Formats: sequence, structure tokens, C-alpha cells
Amino acid sequence: MTTMRTVRWENGVVVTIDQTMLPHKEEWIKLRSCNEVATAIKEMRVRGAPLIGVMAAYGLALTAYHSKARSVEELLREIELSANMLKETRPTAVNLFWAIDRILNKVKSSTGGVEELRHIVIEEAQRIADEDVEVNKRIGEYGSELLEDGDTVLTHCNAGRLATVDYGTALSIIRVAWEKGKRIKVIATETRPKLQGARLTAYELMRDGIPVTLITDNMAGYVMYKGLVNKVIVGADRIVCDAVINKIGTYTIAVLAHEHSIPFYVAAPLSTFDLKSTSRDVIIEERPPEEVTNVGSERIAPLGIPALNPAFDITPIKYVSAIICEKGIITREKFGALAGGDT
Amino acid sequence: MTTMRTVRWENGVVVTIDQTMLPHKEEWIKLRSCNEVATAIKEMRVRGAPLIGVMAAYGLALTAYHSKARSVEELLREIELSANMLKETRPTAVNLFWAIDRILNKVKSSTGGVEELRHIVIEEAQRIADEDVEVNKRIGEYGSELLEDGDTVLTHCNAGRLATVDYGTALSIIRVAWEKGKRIKVIATETRPKLQGARLTAYELMRDGIPVTLITDNMAGYVMYKGLVNKVIVGADRIVCDAVINKIGTYTIAVLAHEHSIPFYVAAPLSTFDLKSTSRDVIIEERPPEEVTNVGSERIAPLGIPALNPAFDITPIKYVSAIICEKGIITREKFGALAGGDT
Repeated sequence: MTTMRTVRWENGVVVTIDQTMLPHKEEWIKLRSCNEVATAIKEMRVRGAPLIGVMAAYGLALTAYHSKARSVEELLREIELSANMLKETRPTAVNLFWAIDRILNKVKSSTGGVEELRHIVIEEAQRIADEDVEVNKRIGEYGSELLEDGDTVLTHCNAGRLATVDYGTALSIIRVAWEKGKRIKVIATETRPKLQGARLTAYELMRDGIPVTLITDNMAGYVMYKGLVNKVIVGADRIVCDAVINKIGTYTIAVLAHEHSIPFYVAAPLSTFDLKSTSRDVIIEERPPEEVTNVGSERIAPLGIPALNPAFDITPIKYVSAIICEKGIITREKFGALAGGDT
Repeated sequence: MTTMRTVRWENGVVVTIDQTMLPHKEEWIKLRSCNEVATAIKEMRVRGAPLIGVMAAYGLALTAYHSKARSVEELLREIELSANMLKETRPTAVNLFWAIDRILNKVKSSTGGVEELRHIVIEEAQRIADEDVEVNKRIGEYGSELLEDGDTVLTHCNAGRLATVDYGTALSIIRVAWEKGKRIKVIATETRPKLQGARLTAYELMRDGIPVTLITDNMAGYVMYKGLVNKVIVGADRIVCDAVINKIGTYTIAVLAHEHSIPFYVAAPLSTFDLKSTSRDVIIEERPPEEVTNVGSERIAPLGIPALNPAFDITPIKYVSAIICEKGIITREKFGALAGGDT
């Protein structure tokens, strides 16, 4: 399978792609502090639930690496301040909190000195990044069984390698199926307002030579009506016991898939699961209205018009055919038993 | 009700708004030949099913007005050539064909000379324009009964005065309800790829002081899920015996409204009805992929990516709660009897 790691740790520098420049320019940026990482997450230079988890981990690693702390207490305080700053960046995807808490727990159970603590943080961040690659490969393997020769798969937003460290979640499934020789096609929704489908998914798939056609979000219904789509696969930002939280527009596509009896699959690592919560507990990030009233530098609406801009929506489990994670395929029925939720 | 005629006949010149410049600039353009009218329709400087019907009629009026024909036969030939040119502009909205055929029939039944023929064409075009205003007022009156104090109405694309000669169809209903003192709000979908919702509906409603909030098309599901919408009203480009043909994205919204038990209304004059046809007979215009891969001057997708761009979609009658025309409110059941169609 083609590989391209979207983020690297290089001796105290985190090197990653500025995704706001794609598809026009593949610009690699160097982040040298946790503050720079937090800003990159907030400005969506890096995005995608698994990737922002990894970036947050690397943010803490940068703090640990560059710290001038002389005592364990001092370093711990710096790491906690960094953790709090990172937790403020984006509220919806759970991987961010999962990665931070994983490192904090590791750190808190350590009994060593400053240097050992520093080492633990950096090593755990690296491990989180490496695991992401492995997990995504497995998601691809399991999920590829769901695709058949001749399928056209609709995907929304970008759940590709650009949303992860490599391979992607939804796109890992598509990649593995493709590499197994299944002749599949992809329809990518552009995914307003930030256009991750048009900019990132299109870019990734074209780079890999997988056939992809772009549509506007509001064509999803029509392509299903015309029988042009067999399956839907999307990623997830958080999976709670009664719903999947994912990029705005996911719910609309799920309802349409349901109406057309098209399987609707969600691909996500277990780090996205938050089964002790329900959809009512989730904060849906509301982003600036300018993302809706403008496209890039182009103003598209009258000045002064109010706009809604929820970054995510909520898809009740009843619309989800199955969830593919690194442990296998969880059908809706199995998920119901697992979550004990309202399915 | 506030009024602003979007097209005027001024002694051999048709004066209208170049809608591609909105909302930034209200630029009035002068069209002096049928050829200029056809180009304006093709380039969507004027759009909206009722308006392109009126524009086509005015196109024939321009041919008649400026003709140097010396015989009735010669003038008839010129008018027919113009009619053919206009019929080639856009295939889906039926009002275009309706208006042209109405004038051709009038002309063919005339027994007078060149001057009388010229006069008949111009007068009939004027009549079509004037009738449109009256028809829309009536649609507004009838439809306003469906709206209640406190309603939030979602509308798609632009079925406003900019899609007609004045008042609009869907927006006429909203305007009349508002002027009757009903405190209603509007949610406008931006309507990719051409953004008629963000550019035109937002502009019209803000100008009239009616509260309007903009969303991207893919937020339609979420605002319904959150209970933020009570009713949907859209226009139509063609109503056949089993479906409503309207701007791409309409079908998606109709399915969502159905899933949330939200009434889905279609507002359209009888000139939009084509009940002898079925949805299988309708040609859905496929527009250039660049409208999808670009927003204004901004390229949003990788070079070379294929894109679909159907300008319209098909909403089966089963998703339509009622159609409001100048004769009153036609419920789905009444429509079924009227159309003898597959409802």
C-alpha cells in the first residue's frame, strides 16, 4: 500500500503538512513548541480526529523536550499547562483528549527524575503515532472485506492519511480494497465549509491513482437516486453510545443512505470511542461564520448576514450499518450490545 | 408588499439585473437582441424558471421590434429562428418552452401584416411578464396561510423576485406572511455550486428586513435534527406528473424533511406544470465541471479531477406535502388526482 507519513518527529521539531495549502501546494511546516501545535490545530492546518490526537501528543513531547525545568514538579506543571492549552483547541473529537490523558497518566505513574519524565513523554507520543499507522492498516484490512468489485463508494470530508499519520480510516479501507485488485470508484463530497473533500480526499486519491469524482454536498441525494452509489464510508470524530459524531453533513448523508437502503459504514480507531457518553454530552464546535460566508478569499454572501457553522453533526446509531475499528467489524447490533445504548 | 421589478421593457431594450454580480453589486444591464438574451440565460446572468420564461418572451420581442423584415413570412422565420436559439439555452425549466410556444401560437394564429405581428409579439411578452407578477402575488396569498407565527422556514436556491419578475414564488409566500405580521424566520441554504441561496436569497430577504440565516447545504440535516426548522418551501423548474424538478439539492432536503416529518412545500406557477410528462422525460441539464471545482475565481480542487454537475434533481411527489400555485394549495392527494400520476 502506498505510504506517506503526514507527521514526523525530528529531534525536538514536529514536521507536518500545512493542510490549508492543499491541493495547490504540499507545504511542510516545522512546529517547535506546544503553542505552535495548538495554533496549528485551532487554525485547522492539521485536522482529522486521529491526527489531532497525535499532534496533541507531540505538542506535549515538544514541551518536555524543550523544557528547562530542574525538578519533576516543575516539568509536570509545564506539561499540565500544555495539556490544558491543547484541550482548549477543539472540543469535539475525542482522540485529542484520549491522547493527552494517555500521556498524563503515563507521566503521573512515573517515579523517575526530570530526564526520565522527558523521555517517557516523547516515547509515548511516538508510540501513539506509530500505533495509529498500525491501527489504520488493520481498519483497512477488515473494512476491505465489505467492498466488492464494481462498487462506487461515497465518502465525506477527509478520513484519509491527511486525517491520520498514514493510510487513513475510511480511505484505508478504500486503499486496501484497491490494492487487493477490487475495481472500485469513489465519489467525494466537497464538504463545505472547509472543503476537505474537494481539497484533501480528492488530492489523496488522485495521488494514489484511485478513480475519484467530485460532487457538491447537495448532490449526495441525487447520486443515490440515480443508483450511482453502492456504499458510504465515513470517519468519525467521536463515537458515543447512541451516535456517531462526524463532520457536518454526515448526518444528511446517513439519512439519504438509509432512505436508499445503501450501507452506511463508519471507520474509526478505538481511540475515537467514548461509550460512557451519549450524544447529549458532546459539545459540537461552532466555528466562525466567516467560514460559511466566504470561500477562501472570496466573499459569497451579503455583509452582515448571520450564518450557522457547526463543525460536526450527530448521526444516531440507527443509521449506521457497521463500525470498522482495528478489532474488526462491529455491526449495529453488536455495537448496541457493546454500548448498552439506545440503538 | 415591497416591490422591485427585476426586468423592464424600454422601447426595444430589455433592462435587467446581472445576477452573477450579486450580492456585491446590483448591476443593471441592457439587452438589445435575442442573441444577447440567449447568452444571458446560458451564462445564468438571469436565472429562475419563471424569469427565464419571461426573458425568452422578451427575446422574441426584441427580434420582432428590431426586425427589418418586409414580409410576414420573413418575420415569422426570424421569430422561429430566435425561438429555436432560445430553446437551446437551458433544457430543464419548462417555463422557457411554455413562454416561447405561447408567443409562437399567438403569432401563428394572426392574419395581420408585419406591423401587427411585431405588435402582437411585444404585447404578448409584456403580458407574460405582467401576469407573472400577478400570479406570484396570488401564490404568496394562498401560501401564507400555511405559515404560522414563530415558524422557521428553510428555503433552497432562490425562488425569489430574482427568479421571477417580482415577489418570487417561495419567497412571495414568506413575504406575504411577513407583511401580515407573522413573525417568521428563514434559513437559506447556500446552494452550491452557483450559490444562489448565499448570493440572491440572502440579499433579497435582508433588503426586505426579513430575518435570514445562512447555512451550507450539508447543514440541512443537522438544523432539522436540532428542531430549528418547521417548514420547507422551495420553487420548481418543472412539475411533472410524478415529481418536482428543481435546483440540485432539493431532493436531499425533501428526504430530510420527510424523515423529520417537516412539511415540504413547492411554490410554482401553473406555467411550471408539465403533467403530460413524467420524470423520465425530463432532461437534467449537466453544466460545466468548473462550476464545482471552482468557487468564483478560487480553484478548490486538484487539477484534472472529474466532477458531476447536474443543475437540477428529481423529487418524487411522495416527498411533497403540497404545491402552491396561483389557483390555490394543491395537496399531494389532490395533485395525484390531477396528474393521474404515480403518487
